Amino acid sequence: MIGVDWGTTSFRAYRMADDGTIQDRRTAALGIMQVENGAFADALAAQIGPWLADGERNVLMCGMIGSRQGWVEAPYLPCPAGAGEIAGALAGVAFPDADVRIVPGLIHADTAGVPDVMRGEETQLVGALPAIGTEGLVCLPGTHAKWVRIVRGRIAGFSTFMTGEVFSALRGHTILGRMMAEAPQDDAAFADGLARSAAPGGMLHHLFGVRALGLSGRLADTASASYLSGLLIGHEVRAAMPSAARVHLIGTAALTAPYAAAITACGGSPVVQSEAAAAAGLARIAGSASWT
Amino acid sequence: MIGVDWGTTSFRAYRMADDGTIQDRRTAALGIMQVENGAFADALAAQIGPWLADGERNVLMCGMIGSRQGWVEAPYLPCPAGAGEIAGALAGVAFPDADVRIVPGLIHADTAGVPDVMRGEETQLVGALPAIGTEGLVCLPGTHAKWVRIVRGRIAGFSTFMTGEVFSALRGHTILGRMMAEAPQDDAAFADGLARSAAPGGMLHHLFGVRALGLSGRLADTASASYLSGLLIGHEVRAAMPSAARVHLIGTAALTAPYAAAITACGGSPVVQSEAAAAAGLARIAGSASWT
Repeated sequence: MIGVDWGTTSFRAYRMADDGTIQDRRTAALGIMQVENGAFADALAAQIGPWLADGERNVLMCGMIGSRQGWVEAPYLPCPAGAGEIAGALAGVAFPDADVRIVPGLIHADTAGVPDVMRGEETQLVGALPAIGTEGLVCLPGTHAKWVRIVRGRIAGFSTFMTGEVFSALRGHTILGRMMAEAPQDDAAFADGLARSAAPGGMLHHLFGVRALGLSGRLADTASASYLSGLLIGHEVRAAMPSAARVHLIGTAALTAPYAAAITACGGSPVVQSEAAAAAGLARIAGSASWT
Repeated sequence: MIGVDWGTTSFRAYRMADDGTIQDRRTAALGIMQVENGAFADALAAQIGPWLADGERNVLMCGMIGSRQGWVEAPYLPCPAGAGEIAGALAGVAFPDADVRIVPGLIHADTAGVPDVMRGEETQLVGALPAIGTEGLVCLPGTHAKWVRIVRGRIAGFSTFMTGEVFSALRGHTILGRMMAEAPQDDAAFADGLARSAAPGGMLHHLFGVRALGLSGRLADTASASYLSGLLIGHEVRAAMPSAARVHLIGTAALTAPYAAAITACGGSPVVQSEAAAAAGLARIAGSASWT
């Protein structure tokens, strides 16, 4: 089979054996935003044409390709959902010479009825489930970080935190960014920001503290981005994590390292999982689907 | 005397009698950022020259003109501070034919030792004190909203919230802004955002809810900016206000109206004060200063 993880800014394809072993792979800077005039079929054929010519028939895709801005919208599936429920809700697209389907995103409403959504992470989670087990708490850091509860081997519910995007907006477009100099991660400043997130006053007040600490010479220009990162991740972890929880982390090392530090500082136990979970998830979902 | 409120983007001057009665005024779009090459003396002379020619000698200025980016830095004065302490810490600047001084900003450290600063608001507060009384809690909404404790007629301490600037950055530079259409304030959506700020999950999670509500058709494009405003102001008020507090509000009607609604929704009692407090503050501080 062929698995495709097609997001907003990148395209990753995997040719896999039935057991999920990756036999070949392709990566391209061809996110859905780079595909013009909705020519997704042509873009896909150009990337995986040789594998199709070689006899592959089944193509399963996940990520923003299934969003309203993508090829076809694969409607959000309600939680709880595991590989079986997801495999039963694939959206098909018209494509010559292959059976191409798209994994749905997931939707979950909290106790107040406010919805939350994911698209792409459900496939990573299904791929990571064998390592995580049937019960657990999982964090996928990123632009929109996800905290996910696994119950009986299925995704039972989740909460999204806009931490990464808020960091970028604050750094790029507020007075806080104007005092920040490019510098490597400053672990001490990150820890100070983490500690500050536990203080009273709330995040909107703590943010101004970044500026006041800088103005008063107590926070160096080269340390303030790390302090801000610690402050925001600290607020996220304190809101998302029950005390003393074990938290499985899925993501790149650049993201899982600070989150592991934050989880530890807040009394939790981080367990870093393999980040290459999307291909495995596509293989597991494909294994649960009935291809004709 | 002449009072000048000289901020980042605007210049306001008042010719006043000894009792603070405003006899004449000038306003110009001449913020300190618009003054080139540090030519503040020339800029000031061009604005108040006729009053000086008419015999005025004492000029008191407040606002960002006293910041590091202004004419001279008037160092931050520690709290508690009232009109007397502020009058004793004025910074003088060289200017022909007049005695020109600048009001210092204030600095206050919280119990954890993290500093907070204000510059300009201290003068508005001194001007509003006769109406507020000797004890009270004051909120000055804005880009960097201030919550101020008045004790025995002095500014005892304060906390700044980056609410206004965070709103602008989120609206202008995140996925939340891309779903917002220009529209008048939507009071129902503002109230929904206020209510949401009381839910568990924290602000970074609630922010993503703005998007999820929009994606699921539960929040209109024309309502989402008001919802976001209610969400952020709600987080500020819940963090800043002791329960059932009486809160004096100083600011334009466009700012005090939503804050009054938020304070009421959170169980407090708003009291809207006159916004024209800067001139009165300059007159009171001048009255406490010893001009030679």
